[in-house]
Amino acid sequence: MNTPDRLLLTALPGLPVVQAGDNLAELILAGLESASLRLQPDDVLVVTSKIVSKSEGRWLDLRTVTPSEEARQLAKATEKDPRLVEAVLRESAAVSRYRSGVLIVRHRLGFTSANAGIDHSNVGMGGEDWVLLLPEDPDASARHLRAELLARTGVGVGVIISDTQGRPFRVGNLGVAIGVAGLPAVLDLRGHEDLFGRRLQSTTVALADAVAAAAGLVSGEADEGRPVVLIRGLQFDTHQGAAADLIRDPAFDLYK
Amino acid sequence: MNTPDRLLLTALPGLPVVQAGDNLAELILAGLESASLRLQPDDVLVVTSKIVSKSEGRWLDLRTVTPSEEARQLAKATEKDPRLVEAVLRESAAVSRYRSGVLIVRHRLGFTSANAGIDHSNVGMGGEDWVLLLPEDPDASARHLRAELLARTGVGVGVIISDTQGRPFRVGNLGVAIGVAGLPAVLDLRGHEDLFGRRLQSTTVALADAVAAAAGLVSGEADEGRPVVLIRGLQFDTHQGAAADLIRDPAFDLYK
Repeated sequence: MNTPDRLLLTALPGLPVVQAGDNLAELILAGLESASLRLQPDDVLVVTSKIVSKSEGRWLDLRTVTPSEEARQLAKATEKDPRLVEAVLRESAAVSRYRSGVLIVRHRLGFTSANAGIDHSNVGMGGEDWVLLLPEDPDASARHLRAELLARTGVGVGVIISDTQGRPFRVGNLGVAIGVAGLPAVLDLRGHEDLFGRRLQSTTVALADAVAAAAGLVSGEADEGRPVVLIRGLQFDTHQGAAADLIRDPAFDLYK
Repeated sequence: MNTPDRLLLTALPGLPVVQAGDNLAELILAGLESASLRLQPDDVLVVTSKIVSKSEGRWLDLRTVTPSEEARQLAKATEKDPRLVEAVLRESAAVSRYRSGVLIVRHRLGFTSANAGIDHSNVGMGGEDWVLLLPEDPDASARHLRAELLARTGVGVGVIISDTQGRPFRVGNLGVAIGVAGLPAVLDLRGHEDLFGRRLQSTTVALADAVAAAAGLVSGEADEGRPVVLIRGLQFDTHQGAAADLIRDPAFDLYK
């Protein structure tokens, strides 16, 4: 990637509340149009996982969930709803850490986050019993959205599906990429030379995570009305990439 | 903070290689001038820790460092230079994890990172024996730079001093804020209501880290020539904040 010297982030205005079955490409193109924007090659669209999940109908009615013994134990230790804990376990490959009020798992998709990314607020189904799971396969969702946009506009953009996650050591949530298509998720600069002709030693850049974190600055948190951010100015050598590239192999993770 | 719907990031062109004693405010204002930019209220400048360290003369000649017994043991286990390991330990509050090729510590400033952020590449002193430590007190450096810019321009901008760090679970480095002045480092949205009138439960946003990660997209890695990024479009309710706010109390960290 050539490092750009200018980058513009624009949150699309006025997207409607997304319903199961909605065509996101259509909604996004309407949002772009109302902002007088047209997609250009190497544009990147960052889309919150929440609206992707909604369009995919990833609702779960907790009244249909029967907690296992493991879920009941963990619910006691974490003081959480046993049905929610059961839903979290079904989305997870392993429990990472827990204590009262906190349940951190390795998601079946590979990343480590609280409650397997299950959203129990701001989901708009009107009822404590409904939760929203993350998209089934966010890399596939990103590829699909990219393909739909390409088919409708002739322009191949990058697509990132973002989630908001906490992290060890540091306070505060940050946008991260859980689905990527059409751009590299990770840049490997090892072997490049610096200004003084020395080899850079271990410079692997989490490009898609940086873009997702940046997009969070304009999409906001409390406002469900701006779930799509257009980022203009990045330049790519390749249009290959997947959020799976951002997952460290647990065998090499010193904090698992 | 009001969430902006548009954000522009601009890397300043043509800053010279920074020397100990250089006045960063002067260099930055010259860079802004050559890009025909003028500071505005609520602009944020993200400055890499590398040039702050250089201006502060934070060089260390490893030939002057005598490794302790602990450093020698750890150097053997990590296959690192015992003098470098000694320098890392002197900058650290605790060793977090290590194995061959990897030494992760809790820095005396609170954050957890590899080699206490000591830079052994791209420092331009011409010699394997010289390393560059992080600024002594990056929050103070940020406050100082903000005050200098305010005195020279009459405009109070936000200043973030960034470092590039790895993280558990995920591949790739990301810009993080290790010094903050003039803007909140963390936003606490707890108690705010979402579109459906529900209370947001635990939405603490790592604002300064998101800004630092975003700035990394235009400052690049291999290129020491663009260490300052101007971010325009953020809006703050307060101009108080410190990178220390981003450090999770180790007593509440499940991964320490």
